[in-house]
Amino acid sequence: MSAPAPSDLAFVPFVSVENMMKLVHRIGIEDMLRGLASAIEEDFRRWELFDKTPRIASHSRDGVIELMPTSDGQVYGFKYVNGHPGNMKEGLQTVTAFGLLATVDTGYPVLLSEMTVLTALRTAATSAMVARHLAPRDARTMAIIGNGAQSEFQALAMKAICGITHLRLFDIDPRATEKTMRNLDGLGLSLSACSTPEEAIESADIITTCTADKQYANILTDNMVGAGVHINAIGGDCPGKTELHRDILSRSTVFIEYPPQTRIEGEIQQMPADFPVTELWQVITGTAPGRTSDSQITLFDGVGFAIEDFSALRFVRDHLQSTGLFQNLDMVADPDDPRDLFGMLQRARI
Amino acid sequence: MSAPAPSDLAFVPFVSVENMMKLVHRIGIEDMLRGLASAIEEDFRRWELFDKTPRIASHSRDGVIELMPTSDGQVYGFKYVNGHPGNMKEGLQTVTAFGLLATVDTGYPVLLSEMTVLTALRTAATSAMVARHLAPRDARTMAIIGNGAQSEFQALAMKAICGITHLRLFDIDPRATEKTMRNLDGLGLSLSACSTPEEAIESADIITTCTADKQYANILTDNMVGAGVHINAIGGDCPGKTELHRDILSRSTVFIEYPPQTRIEGEIQQMPADFPVTELWQVITGTAPGRTSDSQITLFDGVGFAIEDFSALRFVRDHLQSTGLFQNLDMVADPDDPRDLFGMLQRARI
Repeated sequence: MSAPAPSDLAFVPFVSVENMMKLVHRIGIEDMLRGLASAIEEDFRRWELFDKTPRIASHSRDGVIELMPTSDGQVYGFKYVNGHPGNMKEGLQTVTAFGLLATVDTGYPVLLSEMTVLTALRTAATSAMVARHLAPRDARTMAIIGNGAQSEFQALAMKAICGITHLRLFDIDPRATEKTMRNLDGLGLSLSACSTPEEAIESADIITTCTADKQYANILTDNMVGAGVHINAIGGDCPGKTELHRDILSRSTVFIEYPPQTRIEGEIQQMPADFPVTELWQVITGTAPGRTSDSQITLFDGVGFAIEDFSALRFVRDHLQSTGLFQNLDMVADPDDPRDLFGMLQRARI
Repeated sequence: MSAPAPSDLAFVPFVSVENMMKLVHRIGIEDMLRGLASAIEEDFRRWELFDKTPRIASHSRDGVIELMPTSDGQVYGFKYVNGHPGNMKEGLQTVTAFGLLATVDTGYPVLLSEMTVLTALRTAATSAMVARHLAPRDARTMAIIGNGAQSEFQALAMKAICGITHLRLFDIDPRATEKTMRNLDGLGLSLSACSTPEEAIESADIITTCTADKQYANILTDNMVGAGVHINAIGGDCPGKTELHRDILSRSTVFIEYPPQTRIEGEIQQMPADFPVTELWQVITGTAPGRTSDSQITLFDGVGFAIEDFSALRFVRDHLQSTGLFQNLDMVADPDDPRDLFGMLQRARI
């Protein structure tokens, strides 16, 4: 006797890396970044109803593995993500991720998805959504310090969502800059490769720092940053890893996602625990001011928060049926009589 | 141009429910329970080196969704598990689960597995491993109060690991008892269906309580429990859910997995925060006494801990290559140049 076929409830739609890449091209990368930014902004607007917790991190010598759960009361989501700066030398990704959505009322999973590609997209969409609220309104030029895996996504999100037209690129490894130049060629941005960070940030309205070293670094020092810019600092995202000199923080108005997490992981880990910050959801809902003057330096100290992943998974889930870009995984045991798990197991004997 | 094939590193072995059931039958259920008990005991022996944290629970009106991570420094593991007592009425499982192992040095996942079936097995294997340390040495008769999805697994684990030969079954729903009787028929245990809990625990050396109600209940009251028995209380496993009257706890020597979790979730949530307990790993390593007299009541207040899931996933992983009972999931993006995630995405355009 062969095993009885599992019922529909036993199946969880799974979006593989291949299907995620197909989904990006089906939707179009700029449209997808815009869609993700809208989904994230929507969830920031209803920030208060989310169940929020700092990510649960397991640190080791080589890196960190994190679980990032959240729930809006209807849907529960979490992401598994690692950060291993040494991976690159081994030919591996620094960051890989996958995530899951489940219905709160039954606890049954409803989506499992790769999130390495999706995290790159949601990180860029978040940055650009934030920059649309905080950057100078006529921002056209962005500097990107750190031309790794995140750089092209940042570039296209800032183009699609904020109207950036010029990009000034710097990396300590010129091959990284060459790679980013090559990838962005023909995608509608004018590109300048720069040989120093100072050169890159010259005339930039937005400065994005996305370097990967796991250490305290000063990618930007105070004298480099002029009045009125928006700094999008997303590379400092775990304890012991920062990108900006603390004097820049003192001169800036700092905007963050979730204080209990960012105070530990973000640029502001360098500052006293009562260093003033503004929560982004309050800017988005209009309950706190964003940029208030042309000369103000606004700084997004972005570390990535679970709600952004939740929004991104929601976006993917909303496109499953129309695209068919998923496969069903037999992941949930579903006996006809829920008390009869053992009977199901016995009947599966070949 | 079609998308380039992902490299080996992009694949994560996935054990579906179907393959897990095949694995159980390939190994044999009693041998698998013995193997799991050994793996769990081994990990309890090296308890101190694990990174331990209470599970991260998201509670809702209908139930709970939990993440249970741990690491031994080499391998990281976590389980996703829900508990929704109302699911049964909808024809759904009260508990469903899946889990993952990853290598600590790279953060790359190395196993994704269904864990609904596996959790049932590991829970029973843990109970039996603990009973082998604590129950009366000549224990032959076990009562099971609560004949739901966990009951047959408990029965077979106690048979395989502790030499239980007689089973006395009670459930408030006689159909549950009938189901358990039917499932265990012919598997080498003598079975008695009982019409009251009192009748079930008569002459029992081990009393297992595994009911599912999410409330404070008194499945056992003090006058029912005689000297010398071992109580295996595994149904009380979240805040607000207990099975035993507190007077039983006062008369027993209570053994638990991980105090920070069990004090919140276990039977001892009814007791003061300094209620004396013994940690099981200390009994297993010989640094704390187990049973010290024939008249002593030993009580395992089991709530399930992340290390047991870790052990179970390790066991499954060790049997992957020899059985081939897995499929490869394209779950980790793996560009040739790890900095070139965007390039990989662009090359995947059809």
